[in-house]
Amino acid sequence: MPVDRTKLLLDTIKRLLRREATVHLHKIVNKTHAADLAVVFRFLTLREQEALFDLPETVEQKAMLFSELEEELLVKLIEDMPVEKIVEILEQMPNDDVADLLGKLSDERAQALLDLMTKEESEEVEGLLRYDEQTAGGIMLPDFIALKEETTAREAIEALQKEYVDIEMPFYLYVVDDRRRLVGVISLRQLVVVPPHTKLNAIMATDVVSVQTNTDQEEVARIVARYNILAVPVVDESNEPVGIVTVDDVIDIIREEATEDILKMAGAGEDLVETQSVLKSTRIRLPWLLASWIGGIIAFFIIGYFESSLNKLIYLAAFIPIIMGMGGNIGTQSSTIVVRGLATGRLNVKQIWEVVLKELAIGFLLGFFYGILLGFVAHVTLPTQQPALMLGVTVGLAVISSMTIAAVVGSLVPMVFARINVDPAVATGPFVTTSIDIVSVFFYFQIATVLLHL
Amino acid sequence: MPVDRTKLLLDTIKRLLRREATVHLHKIVNKTHAADLAVVFRFLTLREQEALFDLPETVEQKAMLFSELEEELLVKLIEDMPVEKIVEILEQMPNDDVADLLGKLSDERAQALLDLMTKEESEEVEGLLRYDEQTAGGIMLPDFIALKEETTAREAIEALQKEYVDIEMPFYLYVVDDRRRLVGVISLRQLVVVPPHTKLNAIMATDVVSVQTNTDQEEVARIVARYNILAVPVVDESNEPVGIVTVDDVIDIIREEATEDILKMAGAGEDLVETQSVLKSTRIRLPWLLASWIGGIIAFFIIGYFESSLNKLIYLAAFIPIIMGMGGNIGTQSSTIVVRGLATGRLNVKQIWEVVLKELAIGFLLGFFYGILLGFVAHVTLPTQQPALMLGVTVGLAVISSMTIAAVVGSLVPMVFARINVDPAVATGPFVTTSIDIVSVFFYFQIATVLLHL
Repeated sequence: MPVDRTKLLLDTIKRLLRREATVHLHKIVNKTHAADLAVVFRFLTLREQEALFDLPETVEQKAMLFSELEEELLVKLIEDMPVEKIVEILEQMPNDDVADLLGKLSDERAQALLDLMTKEESEEVEGLLRYDEQTAGGIMLPDFIALKEETTAREAIEALQKEYVDIEMPFYLYVVDDRRRLVGVISLRQLVVVPPHTKLNAIMATDVVSVQTNTDQEEVARIVARYNILAVPVVDESNEPVGIVTVDDVIDIIREEATEDILKMAGAGEDLVETQSVLKSTRIRLPWLLASWIGGIIAFFIIGYFESSLNKLIYLAAFIPIIMGMGGNIGTQSSTIVVRGLATGRLNVKQIWEVVLKELAIGFLLGFFYGILLGFVAHVTLPTQQPALMLGVTVGLAVISSMTIAAVVGSLVPMVFARINVDPAVATGPFVTTSIDIVSVFFYFQIATVLLHL
Repeated sequence: MPVDRTKLLLDTIKRLLRREATVHLHKIVNKTHAADLAVVFRFLTLREQEALFDLPETVEQKAMLFSELEEELLVKLIEDMPVEKIVEILEQMPNDDVADLLGKLSDERAQALLDLMTKEESEEVEGLLRYDEQTAGGIMLPDFIALKEETTAREAIEALQKEYVDIEMPFYLYVVDDRRRLVGVISLRQLVVVPPHTKLNAIMATDVVSVQTNTDQEEVARIVARYNILAVPVVDESNEPVGIVTVDDVIDIIREEATEDILKMAGAGEDLVETQSVLKSTRIRLPWLLASWIGGIIAFFIIGYFESSLNKLIYLAAFIPIIMGMGGNIGTQSSTIVVRGLATGRLNVKQIWEVVLKELAIGFLLGFFYGILLGFVAHVTLPTQQPALMLGVTVGLAVISSMTIAAVVGSLVPMVFARINVDPAVATGPFVTTSIDIVSVFFYFQIATVLLHL
């Protein structure tokens, strides 16, 4: 649904909720896709959300809405719902969504729900809960089609019609040997076009791309994206398939990871806080500004240390913003390029010196350009200051050193972080910019004191 | 292929290229997935790339490699290849990839290639070239399955086996009426499980999600992601299907758009420049720093204007970095949250005042916290300065005003940009941070001059 149609839906639902026009609301809710309803929920007050949440009529519709709603919100909305009612709905949902929801509930409540489920389902869900949420095991769907090598195409289609009716993503059929180890894959399409008596091992592709249960979800996303596949099988230590990760989950992962990276790079937490309350947002953002505050205090002491130089040439102060600003901005450029390059796989952590040396050269060239420009401005605007020429040289050199250092620090820190397995995205935030500020200010005053004999 | 296996492949290929071990190379290249080879290409010198490029033996293998390689690189590698050879390979590639490549070539060379293609293929490719590269029409695949409503399941499967053998993504079958307008969709899976004589209009879903040829690719990606579908049909003005956009292309779009947003937000261009030469990178990054430079010059004049205040209380200069830094950092937080919120659809452009007022409150609270903290530090570290208490109050107020203004500007600018259809991502770059710097410095000196009677 395009953006403006979503807006229209939202307005209509809000108006009907205000009017308590239940009949109309029922009609609209029942013909709207759960994914669109989930978007509408984001823009409602808690009270409106609660009213809307009760509207879907059938258990199937409720289950679809459960799967689409954000988990934090869903947890809030089902707080007062009796467990029996919840389980009835959970039974209609894909088990990976059930496991995700249970992971967000209190242990007692999750256990109460598990106790009420059918044995088969609770076992599957508990199996999923065992794995780390950020790994292939934690995001996989335990429903998939695994058939023996000797099965014929006709038998496989019959299995699809009978045994595997509930499979969410039946586009690949996995082939296993007698010990249930993954040996091949066939697409549903191939199955349809071969003669019915063909055996699976005659047509299957044997170079199956698969991931382990403990493979990180980012890696899973990279693999699905690289090979343009619709689903990747997840295998255990003995190469037995235990689930699949489908491409729609991969899209969500890529989105989430990009958001996480962007927020970390800006020093704004890890989750989008725009829907949180003012106080909660403040609390989340507060610590990220501490580095910047401490850095500022250090810069304060550095400038205090050079008080006598400053006293002799008050105009030194006027150049502080531009020297800090140029360093900060080029540092952000460098670290952003490196962090994103690493995230998309276009830069490799082994290229550390190559990248840093290149950034050094770029930082120097850009610093040279903008430094000369600034030196010229300083020289012509302050002709009454003594010695005007040397002041120009000083600020020019300060910009060159600030920008060169910033480009090096901005590229080196994320490369080093990636090498020691720390997320490089945190390296572009306030930490790097602040340290660049400190170093820039120090070099500036040091150069001035020496060159201008202050 | 996991990262370390890619690294191993790269090292092996590099070693074999050095030794010119052609037989070994042939073996490796022929059993490696083209997607993996494409990754290896990124880390080779132009010379190594040229050597490796000649190795795949069959036209099919070459075609797969062509599809996977980055277009800029591919254009360089086929520069000296005779057009006849190229066309032979293009004929084995999906037409959307062919159109993408032709779009990057010079008009004459593209025309020469089109002239050599079969009429059917060149018409399809030219059709695709008509659409803007960033729209559904520009990224769609013109191969899809469209069947009449009266067709039976058996006939549909027969059509799959005969007519539609070359379809890349045969998981959805689209149903059209007599005037070829899109009326329904059926998944291949449904087709397999219903009795063979069932007519398509009896089982098709009629609420087909579709996009127009001119729909922006970001919107297409959002739709595919929201409804968890594997492909979305693209229709023309008369609702006739003309192509499909598949989920694997959507993944690439989401990746690209995230990279583009991140780079724009950091003021580092639009494309990842880490593979470009030093001089080219410098040229691309140079203009993005101009805003910061001009802003710095303005700050320089503002401070110059307050020269006499500064002369009376030299320590004012020492607080410039922290006041600028705190404003800059919270401004980046605010604009990042807003830009990403808009990009992921979690914020709506209509919420402008709600969002900005919230940011104002958050900015004030965070400013209050860090301002008091700074005022306290100023008060205790500078007891010999007169009047020490008022100096503390001054810097405290300066931080509060700087952070409040920064949060408002940082959220307001991207919201306004989005409203007037300018990409909000550019708003977080140097432009916003620089204007925050200027306003912060001005308010600081103004507050100091008034409160301290300078």
